[in-house]
Amino acid sequence: MSSSAPWLLGHLQLAAEATATVAFALSGVIEGARKRLDAVGICVVGGLAAFGGGTLRDVLMDRRPLFWVEHPGWLWGTLALCILAMLFMRSRHLEPTERAMQWPDAVGLGLFTASGTQIALDAGMPGIVAVLFGMVTAVFGGVLRDIVCNEIPRAFSDHRPYAICSFLGGWALVAAHTSHWPQWLAILLAAGLASGLRTAAILLDWRLPAWRAAAPRD
Amino acid sequence: MSSSAPWLLGHLQLAAEATATVAFALSGVIEGARKRLDAVGICVVGGLAAFGGGTLRDVLMDRRPLFWVEHPGWLWGTLALCILAMLFMRSRHLEPTERAMQWPDAVGLGLFTASGTQIALDAGMPGIVAVLFGMVTAVFGGVLRDIVCNEIPRAFSDHRPYAICSFLGGWALVAAHTSHWPQWLAILLAAGLASGLRTAAILLDWRLPAWRAAAPRD
Amino acid sequence: MSSSAPWLLGHLQLAAEATATVAFALSGVIEGARKRLDAVGICVVGGLAAFGGGTLRDVLMDRRPLFWVEHPGWLWGTLALCILAMLFMRSRHLEPTERAMQWPDAVGLGLFTASGTQIALDAGMPGIVAVLFGMVTAVFGGVLRDIVCNEIPRAFSDHRPYAICSFLGGWALVAAHTSHWPQWLAILLAAGLASGLRTAAILLDWRLPAWRAAAPRD
Repeated sequence: MSSSAPWLLGHLQLAAEATATVAFALSGVIEGARKRLDAVGICVVGGLAAFGGGTLRDVLMDRRPLFWVEHPGWLWGTLALCILAMLFMRSRHLEPTERAMQWPDAVGLGLFTASGTQIALDAGMPGIVAVLFGMVTAVFGGVLRDIVCNEIPRAFSDHRPYAICSFLGGWALVAAHTSHWPQWLAILLAAGLASGLRTAAILLDWRLPAWRAAAPRD
Repeated sequence: MSSSAPWLLGHLQLAAEATATVAFALSGVIEGARKRLDAVGICVVGGLAAFGGGTLRDVLMDRRPLFWVEHPGWLWGTLALCILAMLFMRSRHLEPTERAMQWPDAVGLGLFTASGTQIALDAGMPGIVAVLFGMVTAVFGGVLRDIVCNEIPRAFSDHRPYAICSFLGGWALVAAHTSHWPQWLAILLAAGLASGLRTAAILLDWRLPAWRAAAPRD
Repeated sequence: MSSSAPWLLGHLQLAAEATATVAFALSGVIEGARKRLDAVGICVVGGLAAFGGGTLRDVLMDRRPLFWVEHPGWLWGTLALCILAMLFMRSRHLEPTERAMQWPDAVGLGLFTASGTQIALDAGMPGIVAVLFGMVTAVFGGVLRDIVCNEIPRAFSDHRPYAICSFLGGWALVAAHTSHWPQWLAILLAAGLASGLRTAAILLDWRLPAWRAAAPRD
């Protein structure tokens, strides 16, 4: 198993990445539709939600070429997805699509956390920095999407655990890396933990504590 | 002609770039005035509208030195322009100035599209990536201006063809480049197409289709 | 004195930097609390306010490693500060804390202006570019904080001198650098000028002129 597992995981990872990218891009399309953006704006916001987090990580880490420069097929796929969504999605589809996308989005949260953290560890960065880059990869696509749509980023304001799942998954990867686990196992653990926590948070309706300090204002 | 054309075009291009930069900077000044920014904010937003797109492209492509680091005279010029606009522009000037600036803005859209796309092609990037960098160059100065002014970017929400003109102009350049046209002719074609489409869109009041999916919400 | 002054200044500078970073981070915590962000959002906005300006400068200048990658202890300290602030700060503390933080914030404005300008001068950049990078270092942490919190950046809209103090302090450093003053003296002059102007602006309630052009709109 130790030799075929990485190969199998490689294929599984590609499928999971495609699924997660679809979920991230559709979150941008739905947000853009709600804000009544035009067709161009919806495609831009969809692409930003899908690729913004990894791009910001690469710019901060000074890694080139960017993922979508090296693999432009993902740009074509995302563009096609956004156009198809605009052609076939109706207003009554927005809410059910958003609910359905929670699950692949949770997969993406785990996967992008693990890949971002691993890339930073490979570059020799200390644990907290690697965890931070994992969070940037997984969460900042949605943050940029919300900033362009003129909203406070949902990941910071809806009191649902999202970035915190990425944070904990990242630390799991750092711990496994420090303990010299095989890399594929460490990634699997981290992605599974982040995705699992997010899934549990949705299913069990977990909330982040509200800060009492903010209560009496506005 | 084949030898003097590039020389003449070089001078024409400089004049067109200066005109376009004035239009972009003034769009920032006007937007800042509407949002009641103070003098510092207006200069920052003017500069962001003028140089933000090219700077974002250079950061994403990891090109240095940045344009305005290499040619700081453009910073001085833009600063002087913003201060002069604040001294001499009155509230009754805002709307007529904005209307008058549509035409140099259309010139800038074409020119910055062509230069951004060409730079990416020269760096060996695939077609869709080059077109994307052309759009970033031409459109994201205005996007950053609107984000700082706490508005949904106009380029994505006013249902007027803007980024799409840049998109089509960029593809024209990629096609001409692939067909081994002389570079100055390819740039002229792309800039002319993007600027021409934008001009036609203004004159003929073209609209991007609204997306019905968004209709019943909010 | 000429030999011990730099050593003493080095220690004073570290203390001043820590104080200023606390003030910047707390400005993010307070803004996040007002916007009712959750605990994760408050920590992110606190960190962005503290480190965003220097990070943006380093990305624009293509300097690596980033400050907080090289010294991750500052990340831990900021995280601890944000959590402590959330545990112990109550709503009645928000306004007094914000007022108290004006003074260390003024120290930070001067210090970050001087360090950002000096770094750009060391890289051989022309005066206006160096001054601009000093302003980015000192001011854009707060700008990013306000953008994520969906506000027009306060530095551009509250008609109080803030960025302009940084601008003038930066030029003082450029002038001293050109006159071949010892570096520590030039930095002390620039930081003192920017901090002093800001302090005077608060104490004497200085205002930036409003632009009459904007008056009749909205």
